[in-house]
Amino acid sequence: MRQSLETPLSKVKRGPNRAQYDAETAFRIIDNTLMCHVGQSKNGQVFVTPTCHWREGEYFYWHGHAKARNIKAPIDDAEKVCINLCQLDGLVLARSAMHHSVNYRSVTLFGVPELIEDTEEKVRQFKIFLDKVSPGRWDALRPINDIEIKATGLLRIKIEEASIKVRAEPPVDDPDDNDWPVWAGVVPLQQQWGPLEQDPIQTELFDTPTPPDAF
Amino acid sequence: MRQSLETPLSKVKRGPNRAQYDAETAFRIIDNTLMCHVGQSKNGQVFVTPTCHWREGEYFYWHGHAKARNIKAPIDDAEKVCINLCQLDGLVLARSAMHHSVNYRSVTLFGVPELIEDTEEKVRQFKIFLDKVSPGRWDALRPINDIEIKATGLLRIKIEEASIKVRAEPPVDDPDDNDWPVWAGVVPLQQQWGPLEQDPIQTELFDTPTPPDAF
Ligand SMILES: Cc1cc2nc3c(=O)[nH]c(=O)nc-3n(C[C@H](O)[C@H](O)[C@H](O)COP(=O)(O)OP(=O)(O)OC[C@H]3O[C@@H](n4cnc5c(N)ncnc54)[C@H](O)[C@@H]3O)c2cc1C
Ligand SMILES: Cc1cc2nc3c(=O)[nH]c(=O)nc-3n(C[C@H](O)[C@H](O)[C@H](O)COP(=O)(O)OP(=O)(O)OC[C@H]3O[C@@H](n4cnc5c(N)ncnc54)[C@H](O)[C@@H]3O)c2cc1C
Ligand code: HEM
Ligand code: HEM
Repeated sequence: MRQSLETPLSKVKRGPNRAQYDAETAFRIIDNTLMCHVGQSKNGQVFVTPTCHWREGEYFYWHGHAKARNIKAPIDDAEKVCINLCQLDGLVLARSAMHHSVNYRSVTLFGVPELIEDTEEKVRQFKIFLDKVSPGRWDALRPINDIEIKATGLLRIKIEEASIKVRAEPPVDDPDDNDWPVWAGVVPLQQQWGPLEQDPIQTELFDTPTPPDAF
Repeated sequence: MRQSLETPLSKVKRGPNRAQYDAETAFRIIDNTLMCHVGQSKNGQVFVTPTCHWREGEYFYWHGHAKARNIKAPIDDAEKVCINLCQLDGLVLARSAMHHSVNYRSVTLFGVPELIEDTEEKVRQFKIFLDKVSPGRWDALRPINDIEIKATGLLRIKIEEASIKVRAEPPVDDPDDNDWPVWAGVVPLQQQWGPLEQDPIQTELFDTPTPPDAF
């Protein structure tokens, strides 16, 4: 059986035809994306923080300075955060202004973050994070030390309350407008990793890194 | 004199060396970016909604269905929303795990949204929005009508409380690690508009649209 992530909070109201709730599809979009936007509040004010993320199994992880607001605030005062991550896939040009849109893959997650404090588990997660960003790189790095581990705050939420919205199609105009004489269609957005820029202070040549499979 | 957007709320605490507060720089990043993440709350729950935006002068605009939560909630119950928009420019690969990072241009805005209800002003803004997305296209479209104007909710905030964070440099490792034998540097992210995909139900050839200068 496929696990559904739908709950009253994550149920899509506007554009429900674009909604999906299965965990596997959410995992795929999460893994193909490098960054998310974490929404939380402090003293009644909402904050949105762009942050890199990764996933292991049913858990979604992010990190920051142990004392940063985007790490400490939802722990000091337990709160259900809302996180969105999305990929912009193209621009949808319709025959009428209102039916213009964008193609996208988008995931919204809800959960009360949990702070990971166990040193071994933290290091295990940092390696998973690095493997997402550049597979195989961890073992070539200067080993991590205790000061760095302590300085880093690590949070996770379980992926169990979430929604997916995907748009991947040509414009959908009012049928009466289909013959309107203007170009209509999709302008796809392309993303790729460009030529490596080695640190100018590095003079030796080393094996080049593998870029990630995520953007 | 340059206008500063710094306030106690928008003052960057972590990584203040990467902070800027001048309006012109914020305008440039806003104009070069197609989408933002709007953070607001309803009944005590934070929501983060990916949304397209545009700018005219000192005002930042977004739209949605007049009854959508991301339009109605901050109006029904006036609230200072937090909006972030950012461009991921590259992956920063350091010699130690902890100094890995990303290059980026990021703007965070705060403001209490204002609902624009005047029909003429709404249409004027929709044209500005379309000119951002595809310059010169508005006049070729099937003209907008009253039902569409009424169905669309238009919000704006004044750009007066905001912060910019930019990272655009090679890795910054601990000086002791600079000779560590592993490739270090930046993997730049490239974005471009791909070949146009005309709506398959359209059989005639028309002048092709101009893609936007924003991603
Ligand atoms: C693409 C991207 C990925 C990132 N990934 C990570 C990550 O994985 N881990 C991490 O720790 N940090 C990451 N950052 C930086 C992150 O956005 C925050 O700046 C940082 O986490 C400090 O958060 P804080 O809540 O403690 O900020 P504070 O410094 O306490 O925030 C105070 C004020 O500073 C301003 N501010 C904070 N962050 C930003 C921003 N990004 N842009 C504009 N204004 C800002 C806001 O006005 C905010 O109200 C990333 C940034 C970008 C753009
Ligand atoms: C790149 C991008 C640009 C967009 N630009 C616009 C725009 O300019 N104007 C506009 O009206 N809409 C835009 N959308 C859609 C927008 O994100 C919302 O889906 C829509 O505005 C409805 O918002 P709401 O708060 O009324 O949602 P509701 O349907 O009331 O939200 C209920 C629940 O549905 C889920 N949900 C809602 N939106 C999303 C989402 N995007 N991804 C995953 N789950 C979601 C959440 O779990 C949420 O709690 C854009 C989406 C993307 C990805
Ligand atoms: C300028 C005139 C425009 C008007 C009057 C208009 C109107 C609307 C309305 C009413 C909705 C809500 C649909 C619903 O929730 O039922 C909507 C949604 C949306 N609009 Fe627009 N729009 C305009 C232009 C654009 C442009 C130029 C873009 C982007 C290029 C855009 C992107 C979107 C997106 C992404 C959605 C969400 C639809 C979805 O999630 O599938 N709109 N618009
Ligand atoms: C895996 C081991 C890692 C550790 C221990 C670690 C630790 C930290 C710490 C402590 C901070 C806070 C700095 C501060 O606010 O003073 C931070 C910030 C950050 N980290 Fe990491 N990090 C790791 C890997 C990564 C990776 C792989 C990336 C992305 C590719 C990354 C991206 C960032 C970014 C973008 C910031 C914000 C810095 C800025 O805004 O300039 N980190 N990290």
